[in-house]
Amino acid sequence: MSERFGSVVLPRLTLHSGKVLKEARVAYSINGTPRPDGSNVVVVCHALTGSHHVAGGPVPGLPDAWWDAVVRPGGALDTGKLCVICCNNLCSPYGSSAPIDTEPGTERPWGMNFPVVDPRDVAFSQKKALEAIGVRRVAGVVGGSLGGMLALEWAALTNDLSFAVVLAAPLRLYPQAIAFNGVQRHAITSDPEWKDGDYYPEQGPVKGLANARMLAMITYRSEESFVRRHMRESRNIDDWKGRFDVESYLMHHGKLLTRRFDANCYLYLTKMMDLHDLSRNRADAEAAFEPMRKKNFLAVGINSDILFPAWQVQEVVEAASDVGVCAVYREIRSDSGHDAFLLEAEQVSNILIEFFDLIGFPNVDL
Amino acid sequence: MSERFGSVVLPRLTLHSGKVLKEARVAYSINGTPRPDGSNVVVVCHALTGSHHVAGGPVPGLPDAWWDAVVRPGGALDTGKLCVICCNNLCSPYGSSAPIDTEPGTERPWGMNFPVVDPRDVAFSQKKALEAIGVRRVAGVVGGSLGGMLALEWAALTNDLSFAVVLAAPLRLYPQAIAFNGVQRHAITSDPEWKDGDYYPEQGPVKGLANARMLAMITYRSEESFVRRHMRESRNIDDWKGRFDVESYLMHHGKLLTRRFDANCYLYLTKMMDLHDLSRNRADAEAAFEPMRKKNFLAVGINSDILFPAWQVQEVVEAASDVGVCAVYREIRSDSGHDAFLLEAEQVSNILIEFFDLIGFPNVDL
Repeated sequence: MSERFGSVVLPRLTLHSGKVLKEARVAYSINGTPRPDGSNVVVVCHALTGSHHVAGGPVPGLPDAWWDAVVRPGGALDTGKLCVICCNNLCSPYGSSAPIDTEPGTERPWGMNFPVVDPRDVAFSQKKALEAIGVRRVAGVVGGSLGGMLALEWAALTNDLSFAVVLAAPLRLYPQAIAFNGVQRHAITSDPEWKDGDYYPEQGPVKGLANARMLAMITYRSEESFVRRHMRESRNIDDWKGRFDVESYLMHHGKLLTRRFDANCYLYLTKMMDLHDLSRNRADAEAAFEPMRKKNFLAVGINSDILFPAWQVQEVVEAASDVGVCAVYREIRSDSGHDAFLLEAEQVSNILIEFFDLIGFPNVDL
Repeated sequence: MSERFGSVVLPRLTLHSGKVLKEARVAYSINGTPRPDGSNVVVVCHALTGSHHVAGGPVPGLPDAWWDAVVRPGGALDTGKLCVICCNNLCSPYGSSAPIDTEPGTERPWGMNFPVVDPRDVAFSQKKALEAIGVRRVAGVVGGSLGGMLALEWAALTNDLSFAVVLAAPLRLYPQAIAFNGVQRHAITSDPEWKDGDYYPEQGPVKGLANARMLAMITYRSEESFVRRHMRESRNIDDWKGRFDVESYLMHHGKLLTRRFDANCYLYLTKMMDLHDLSRNRADAEAAFEPMRKKNFLAVGINSDILFPAWQVQEVVEAASDVGVCAVYREIRSDSGHDAFLLEAEQVSNILIEFFDLIGFPNVDL
């Protein structure tokens, strides 16, 4: 069965900060058929500028599917057997509640009146949304980058998961990643078209958003990949207007994002990422793993990741192991940098298949 | 004798590109007394936003001295014995010809009509300036970061150097560094106050320049130093206006630079850095070291440098060694990142003193 889309509205979502988000909408996709006991349901969490459109052909209004090679019939997340559900993250412009939406009780977009949302809130909203559509149990949760942070919070909020898989995500954001996000937000809020977030229905700070994306792209790649693809290739660099190819590449990607993304959403989503800290308002990070004790956990690092280096992912496994989670670490070997969790689909698939074999998932006899 | 300042105007400076810069002014400082044979003269080259004010107390209109602990009587560059000369780089706003100056034959600032200048041009302009003030020979050249690139070009342009020292600089800019510079330039040129560089006498794209500096500061530091200084310290982060300390730190440094630097100069100087390639218009990088054959060369890397990683500095030593330069590599051990060549004055001094002992510089009996 192909991908189906839907959405749920939660009348009142109490956030980690104590604030309440009214009429919190959570958009989702479902690939495959859930068993009534939830034993074949896998929640997949998407990254910063992705959407809940995980697999399959083009869908109007949504960016291209980001894990089509992994989530498919016969794939590592085999939608012939499994039911893969992905929810659009709060603050994302692709259907869930976000700054671009009308604030309930008003006729104006939320803009910067939208409350700050952290990864724990997002995981909680997704759990509530699944309950609302009758999915009361899920077997496991999988995510990369911001999606990995969400998968960690899912695991911390859920007692009956069989497994969790985190790719290229840390226990908490370290200050260099916060710094990169902070400079990106500064680029957006410095653009006079931002207007304190009150730019709708105009597109707003397009140049600032493009600049933010250009910087982000550096952190998603690696020196090795830039050397392989661009090195010092250039045109007319003795002239002021001449450019190195790597600059043109970044500008191209900056422009592409502005065609499909909202600047205020980008501000909230990078802030969400900064707020990721599994130990926040818990005794420590280890305490977050208590619900996963004796359950199965896989963390996947990337050797060339400069945004969330492999040591940060190894740290997740150490914290989980410390409280008796059956945690394993695997590494994607690639020169592609952080985005290898998207680009190296074959390695990702092999690592997932090995892990599922190890833990005996899914139990096809059920 | 304390620091003295002066400047030289070169009527016509032919640039590497073939263009001619008319009335090229080179500002300089002299610390100490030159011997007539030049055997105690050391040229020090400054970095991107530095100036020729290397040592000593405040000087109106110039930023604070950047190597006061190294260049002083009794220091590693002992101005009691040596004569240390530093020239302000072309394109810098501190006295040498730059986009902020009036274009000869007009009454308007150069702005973006200023020609693109590469590190070879800067080294050449400084050699010519020294000749003009009667310094026909220098014993050695020392520089860090962009100053290190200039020191490499000085060495390639000069037959009678005894030594050259390069700190935290590569043979050529690799694409990740170009990418970081490109995003910084994009932040400036995206600021509507930039006005294609035609913003004088206004201060121009202050927000864009601040943003560029914020990003640059990340590349001058390291994750370890951010962890040590800021980690996840924050104020009021559940509110949109709350900030992590590392963000506030970057914003502070962004603002500081806008009070003392010109945006067009920043564009030209980052472009200059991108153009650094010792092999450009030479057979290869090794060919550039021919004039240094059997001379002494020291390259100093920094273990935590993310802008010009230690391997890139080691590569300089390998290229030099390949053509018979007496080249050694030393490493600053520090968590401070790229700026350790400024911040770790004691290690820098010890490395320089060891090197000068090794090569017998200066020959005090002369």
